[in-house]
Amino acid sequence: MKRRDFIKATGLGGLAVSSAALAAPVVAPVVQPHKTYKWKMVTSWPKNFPGLGAGAEFLAKIINDLSDGQLQIKVYGAGEIVPAMEVFDAVSQGKVEMGHSASYYWRNKGAVNQFFTTIPFGLTAQEMNAWLYYGGGMDLWREAYEHHGLIPTAAGNTGVQMAGWFNREINDIQDLSGLKMRIPGFGANALTAAKGTVVTLAGGELFSALQSGAIDATEWVGPYNDLAFGLYKIAKYYYYPAWHEPGSTMECMINKKAYESLPKQLQNIVTYASRVANQDMLAEFTAKNGQALHTLVNEHRVDLRPLPFAVLKQMRQYVDEAIRNEAAKDPFTQKVYDSIEQFRQQVSAWHDVSERAYMNMRALINDSKKFDYCTPVVEEARPPTV
Amino acid sequence: MKRRDFIKATGLGGLAVSSAALAAPVVAPVVQPHKTYKWKMVTSWPKNFPGLGAGAEFLAKIINDLSDGQLQIKVYGAGEIVPAMEVFDAVSQGKVEMGHSASYYWRNKGAVNQFFTTIPFGLTAQEMNAWLYYGGGMDLWREAYEHHGLIPTAAGNTGVQMAGWFNREINDIQDLSGLKMRIPGFGANALTAAKGTVVTLAGGELFSALQSGAIDATEWVGPYNDLAFGLYKIAKYYYYPAWHEPGSTMECMINKKAYESLPKQLQNIVTYASRVANQDMLAEFTAKNGQALHTLVNEHRVDLRPLPFAVLKQMRQYVDEAIRNEAAKDPFTQKVYDSIEQFRQQVSAWHDVSERAYMNMRALINDSKKFDYCTPVVEEARPPTV
Repeated sequence: MKRRDFIKATGLGGLAVSSAALAAPVVAPVVQPHKTYKWKMVTSWPKNFPGLGAGAEFLAKIINDLSDGQLQIKVYGAGEIVPAMEVFDAVSQGKVEMGHSASYYWRNKGAVNQFFTTIPFGLTAQEMNAWLYYGGGMDLWREAYEHHGLIPTAAGNTGVQMAGWFNREINDIQDLSGLKMRIPGFGANALTAAKGTVVTLAGGELFSALQSGAIDATEWVGPYNDLAFGLYKIAKYYYYPAWHEPGSTMECMINKKAYESLPKQLQNIVTYASRVANQDMLAEFTAKNGQALHTLVNEHRVDLRPLPFAVLKQMRQYVDEAIRNEAAKDPFTQKVYDSIEQFRQQVSAWHDVSERAYMNMRALINDSKKFDYCTPVVEEARPPTV
Repeated sequence: MKRRDFIKATGLGGLAVSSAALAAPVVAPVVQPHKTYKWKMVTSWPKNFPGLGAGAEFLAKIINDLSDGQLQIKVYGAGEIVPAMEVFDAVSQGKVEMGHSASYYWRNKGAVNQFFTTIPFGLTAQEMNAWLYYGGGMDLWREAYEHHGLIPTAAGNTGVQMAGWFNREINDIQDLSGLKMRIPGFGANALTAAKGTVVTLAGGELFSALQSGAIDATEWVGPYNDLAFGLYKIAKYYYYPAWHEPGSTMECMINKKAYESLPKQLQNIVTYASRVANQDMLAEFTAKNGQALHTLVNEHRVDLRPLPFAVLKQMRQYVDEAIRNEAAKDPFTQKVYDSIEQFRQQVSAWHDVSERAYMNMRALINDSKKFDYCTPVVEEARPPTV
């Protein structure tokens, strides 16, 4: 407490105190502590859900730890205050102060929102963070959310996901025709172009929808979260890689007025705590997806398969068309897309000689099991173009 | 300020105040503000050096922002208080409260220290963070530093580095024989086994050593930092990938007594601020290495080359032997090595179908320039073993 605050709190500021009061033994004055803020955070995740839900809980804990309890956040699962898909409105309208979700769920509020989670064939988690913090991404995201009365932060990342669970084999692009699948973001546009049917469902509804036959396929996150939902019990094929979600950024959104009511220190705490949560979720998924994949394949005998390259190539064409069309409708969306594309080109040239070259070399040296487009080859050295 | 602290500060705690004092107009009591801590952070980086040095400065800023100035850290470049390679001793002995460096510089204090930066053919940045925060790595690191009176945090990561700058071509393993090279950590053991000569130099000395012919080759970090040192002016060949440093974790070390003298909230701030800095440096390097590589190749016409696969395979054998020998000398070192190895095996199986498969697929689809072991191939689908 600063001196000025103390004086105000105790009412002693520069005033003489009556002698009647002073004659009595002095009772220790009641000192007003720092104003405590109690906030609610609604989420799009089932209560106590591993990974995504745990990430929201951890964010609340970091804020509490950093502020010594001055800013206390209570986390609510999907449906406790508002349903999973109403998190945006609840925070935007000030019903609650904070939300934890993913921006691509809000395409109906503006097509541009999808770009801040991930775009198909786009950036990995490490590349997304580079774009957000050092490529202008966060500024664009703040601009996109501003007129909704929201301040966004990146507050988690799943890493490269899985392509999803399918009750039928996918051998060519025709196999997607008529397929009823839950898939968000621009991946949904590609499925529509391939004559599939897009179904919108929150995570908590996936198991029963797949079991009842309401859907034929679903993507969710990756081995760790997919194992938790038991999706292996009701879908035979588990496809990779996640062409549609190469590094999905989870979001924390803060009601702008609530944020502005905080002292500067607590604003900093919310911002930096999000960055800790952003990194932490990726570390958790990276560690636990490894264990969960091992369990799925070796205990539950899941049929792990690569999507055929020709299917992926076709989906890429569909996706590009969908994104270009969407971006062309609005200059700001175009600006965001151009920013990501330019960043992707430069960062993938660098990752060709660093992350990707290293991982391929390591796999080759360790004689890692070779399968489809994961297999690196040793060729004559040729100078790359960067 | 808590009530108890206030009472102590003002001396009013439960005591009657003499009537003489009370008869006079009450002067507003002098309230002790929060105690302010002013700390020094020494670093192994040249003053104001981009990337690594900027990371240390940013860590200090985050701590200042989060504590509202209650914990103020002044950052010193290498040689300002102590030389680059005396950071460990300075913090351990309590000469200063904090240091920013890399644990593999301290192999003379204990071979185990090398494992907490990176090991050759080991974990990438994303995998290191997963191991540190969710694979038991941080606990082991704390244990390793405990008897030096130090508390370590992970406070930056360079991502996959480059193999280095060479004044001669490396076509087979014999080309390393007689080579005088600056290379830290276990990579140095492999060079020695290949009959090269290891030279220990701080970053600031590299340019002149390479220029004078005191060394024939040096690794440093990656395009962004290497460009800043101007290494392209004096060495012809720039080799990749960094077999010896696939994701180096930078460290913040805190004098244990100094840390324990902090209130719990400031301790939390130091820990979480390190995690922000850890993520931030990786994002910065990822973004800026892309730009710098483009400049090096297209403006400065640097000869960018892959190390021959046969050389890497041989270095891997040398490295394994060196690490196994070192680990066998001491049960704790063995424990740390086993922990990393077990983690690497599981996480690379996961990354085979996620990060690596995705990046290869993206490169294929974008018809990215193909060169040596970066080139993915499309094969018949085969179920992988995980």
